Amino acid sequence: MSDPFKQLRDALDQFATERDWDQFHSPKNLAMALTVEAAELQECFQWLTEAQSRELDEQQLAAVRDEIADVQLYLIRLAGKLDVDIEAACRAKMEKNVEKYPADQVKGSAKKYTHYQD
Amino acid sequence: MSDPFKQLRDALDQFATERDWDQFHSPKNLAMALTVEAAELQECFQWLTEAQSRELDEQQLAAVRDEIADVQLYLIRLAGKLDVDIEAACRAKMEKNVEKYPADQVKGSAKKYTHYQD
Amino acid sequence: MSDPFKQLRDALDQFATERDWDQFHSPKNLAMALTVEAAELQECFQWLTEAQSRELDEQQLAAVRDEIADVQLYLIRLAGKLDVDIEAACRAKMEKNVEKYPADQVKGSAKKYTHYQD
Amino acid sequence: MSDPFKQLRDALDQFATERDWDQFHSPKNLAMALTVEAAELQECFQWLTEAQSRELDEQQLAAVRDEIADVQLYLIRLAGKLDVDIEAACRAKMEKNVEKYPADQVKGSAKKYTHYQD
Repeated sequence: MSDPFKQLRDALDQFATERDWDQFHSPKNLAMALTVEAAELQECFQWLTEAQSRELDEQQLAAVRDEIADVQLYLIRLAGKLDVDIEAACRAKMEKNVEKYPADQVKGSAKKYTHYQD
Repeated sequence: MSDPFKQLRDALDQFATERDWDQFHSPKNLAMALTVEAAELQECFQWLTEAQSRELDEQQLAAVRDEIADVQLYLIRLAGKLDVDIEAACRAKMEKNVEKYPADQVKGSAKKYTHYQD
Repeated sequence: MSDPFKQLRDALDQFATERDWDQFHSPKNLAMALTVEAAELQECFQWLTEAQSRELDEQQLAAVRDEIADVQLYLIRLAGKLDVDIEAACRAKMEKNVEKYPADQVKGSAKKYTHYQD
Repeated sequence: MSDPFKQLRDALDQFATERDWDQFHSPKNLAMALTVEAAELQECFQWLTEAQSRELDEQQLAAVRDEIADVQLYLIRLAGKLDVDIEAACRAKMEKNVEKYPADQVKGSAKKYTHYQD
């Protein structure tokens, strides 16, 4: 009952129904919208150094908070359309990651999980 | 206590600490990783029609579930690094959206929220 | 001399030098900016059907043209910073693709190159 | 005749025709594929520092070169489908940018073109 994923999913369902927007919300389109929002979130950081990205001022943080919400909302909407339980999917993925990246082998090395060395 | 955002955030903290990966997890880098995962999720749909995207088979759905988890985990990790309460941010954003897109004015029209007409 | 990639690369060099923006233009940052522009281009299409995306009106096309330019300009800038010859890279990649996707085997099937079946 | 954009566009047309892939290449789908490739390019840099991104080794550079080609090829394919002259679009955009970012006003300041201050 208190699960935020379910509550937000239901609120998004109602929001779309009231606007007759279900017709636009195919999983394909929602996945596109999600990527667009992720890119907008990333844009907040693109000209900052890594150090600066750790010390956002209040104006920057407000923009970031807004974009984080956009990503989260589209992700919940997409998962809802596909009957995916996000929390269960996350727990399953974390178990996979624990096996894939054994702490004693990858410790301190980003190289172990960079793209071009897959 | 039962909030999945907090539980997953703590699990991700531990996962990174055990691997000494905090050094790579600046908000800037996490935002990049999030976009990459969103694109991988989108890739599952890119050659499907919208209709096909609504009727995934089990193999397709397993891939999608995995990518949804990746996006969610990086989003929680990024929000955790910036002390952003995702659930609160989502509720605030939904209130904004209700005002920005009055149901009686935008009903059935995607045009009202397309990019080039902003 | 008449190569548009070289001419645009030089124009971008001059543009950045005049603004003292080289300091922001690390390959990492340029790759981020490129993805953001690609997402903005994609955003023009996200609520359109595939059929609608083939029949843009002049206003939509002007927006798309602008975003195509943004992607191209960042790509040239990034390649310039890394001394990558875009045209040669494209020709090498096309040769690889001809081998990877033999026409007689993949004909008419998008499935052969979808992500989750790699 | 020697314009690389036109030559590559024609080569891509032939490649798709031979595989009967035109059916998948709506502008919407091509824009999605372009973003996915841009994200793959970005992925090469995501765990590198900005300094490291300026000093790629040969293996890293080979991966980057490949992804730059993928982005370029989808951009040419998309522009071709929409009859957009990429080079002309780039020149028009650069003129706009020269006006939008007067060198004497924005010199040395990335803040002038960050997202959250637009």
